[in-house]
Amino acid sequence: MSEELIQKLLEGDKRAIAKAISLVENEPNNAKQLIKEIYPYTGNSYVIGITGAPGTGKSTLIAKLIPEFLKEKKRVGVLLIDPSSPFSGGAIFGNRIRMSDLTNDENVYIRSMATRGMLGGVSRATSDAIKIFDASGKEIIIIETVGTGQVDVDVFNKVHTNVVITVPGLGDYVQTLKAGILEIADIFVVNKADRENADRTVSDLEEMLSIGPKKEWKVPIIKTIATEGKGIDKLYYEIKRHQNYLMTSNLMQEKQKKICYSDLIDIIEQGIRNKVQDKVKSKKFDEILGRIISKEIDPYSASEEILNNGKREIR
Amino acid sequence: MSEELIQKLLEGDKRAIAKAISLVENEPNNAKQLIKEIYPYTGNSYVIGITGAPGTGKSTLIAKLIPEFLKEKKRVGVLLIDPSSPFSGGAIFGNRIRMSDLTNDENVYIRSMATRGMLGGVSRATSDAIKIFDASGKEIIIIETVGTGQVDVDVFNKVHTNVVITVPGLGDYVQTLKAGILEIADIFVVNKADRENADRTVSDLEEMLSIGPKKEWKVPIIKTIATEGKGIDKLYYEIKRHQNYLMTSNLMQEKQKKICYSDLIDIIEQGIRNKVQDKVKSKKFDEILGRIISKEIDPYSASEEILNNGKREIR
Repeated sequence: MSEELIQKLLEGDKRAIAKAISLVENEPNNAKQLIKEIYPYTGNSYVIGITGAPGTGKSTLIAKLIPEFLKEKKRVGVLLIDPSSPFSGGAIFGNRIRMSDLTNDENVYIRSMATRGMLGGVSRATSDAIKIFDASGKEIIIIETVGTGQVDVDVFNKVHTNVVITVPGLGDYVQTLKAGILEIADIFVVNKADRENADRTVSDLEEMLSIGPKKEWKVPIIKTIATEGKGIDKLYYEIKRHQNYLMTSNLMQEKQKKICYSDLIDIIEQGIRNKVQDKVKSKKFDEILGRIISKEIDPYSASEEILNNGKREIR
Repeated sequence: MSEELIQKLLEGDKRAIAKAISLVENEPNNAKQLIKEIYPYTGNSYVIGITGAPGTGKSTLIAKLIPEFLKEKKRVGVLLIDPSSPFSGGAIFGNRIRMSDLTNDENVYIRSMATRGMLGGVSRATSDAIKIFDASGKEIIIIETVGTGQVDVDVFNKVHTNVVITVPGLGDYVQTLKAGILEIADIFVVNKADRENADRTVSDLEEMLSIGPKKEWKVPIIKTIATEGKGIDKLYYEIKRHQNYLMTSNLMQEKQKKICYSDLIDIIEQGIRNKVQDKVKSKKFDEILGRIISKEIDPYSASEEILNNGKREIR
């Protein structure tokens, strides 16, 4: 990106932000230079994660939540992590449609980031996108992910407040997820709370939380009906309360360190992976693969050979 | 593991297999030595993946499928990849209970592998477990995974025939999954086919397959009622037909190469992760983290500094 575009990005220009995120999506190694240059201008955003299974109403909830921040004159960036299929070749969700009323507001920037083909790189791409929003002056950054496992856990390491959404009657599947996702939630939302069994879902969550490790922050469970805007004020209040909790303890500093740590680890791993990719492309790699298939060498010894630049490890 | 235990493992002793898999679960770096030693005895198994969302009846289906292989005097190993929660601290599913009739059969070995805390390592652990089953003389290995994204795609790279199960009326969630999972299916099963809308589910799948890229192998869609054993013979037939298809084309060799490749990449990545961990433990890492937080250095330059052993990269 040219100096001029970076300047525009720092001024919050929507087209410049769009170009920068595209760079992260499509040319991660070029995005690196950009992030280096804007890094000094980051560190001023509060990052909120919103995660939940498809159909729980995340996008509608976010669309209703944004105006609460706008009332406070905050600038808001929304990143929708989109696990689009390599098969369908495009986004599955109608997120942007649901939020379309907001996209003309100059203080709101909503962007979905397709993650197909980004195996292992979603985490790093998310960090980069957060830094772009941050440097562009967004005081509030909302990251939406689909609650399907690893990505959520990775994204959890990037946010200050993590909101987990469920709905009544999602059944077996959610039961499975809940267990894994319980400990990454700072706030629980039971959306579509006009469905039957909403109270049952709340008490199930309460019970699961009660048997977990005791923490100083008691995770609140909020009932919402996002389509009608009900409960959004309460959610907003709890997000602010959690932010305040982090600020008034020394946890904010700890959190910041954790985010920084996770970020650095991602980048180091990517750096090493790039080095390995170079090796994979080499003739030697093909030769070694052949030796594994013919049982001349086992894959662990082969890996040692590759990582130690051809020198076998001494056992 | 002692030489004696390895000998017993190669003879198919159940206790030895159990110990070996525990090693993979709990001490991956020690398991490495074991895999090196048994590697020459592997390569004789046919590996079948069974994946689907919770509640689709995977375990019941597998329990009914195993006897079909036993009739042919095959030895069968079943590995249940269990995304147990770090929170609940244990397995969620009643898989083993559903299969308990079979656990006393000397030609069947069923084992669930908990994947909590194995972030990123599930794929490698699965490869290791497959090699253990393989070396222990199991001609058929069945891998069950819960259809929640990345893990399935990883496991797909380890198997010869991949069976994807769905049920009528799973709704939104499955719609999302299906797109991602479509292209990794060699066979589709619509289980609980006595539910209404079963034919609708079949025709939905047919339609989705018809818009995908054309392949020589036309993915069959089979209706089953696993609890009643209905359709199992047809599934068994299609698995054999797919195996035969791979064998009589040169695809089997290609598949074997792909499995080997995926295996080696996993191991290399793990090796890399270990190297990163070594760096993280160093004093220098803490110092650099402090410099990132204070904005003295950006994380990309910091990573370069760490990977180049302190020398800054020349731009």
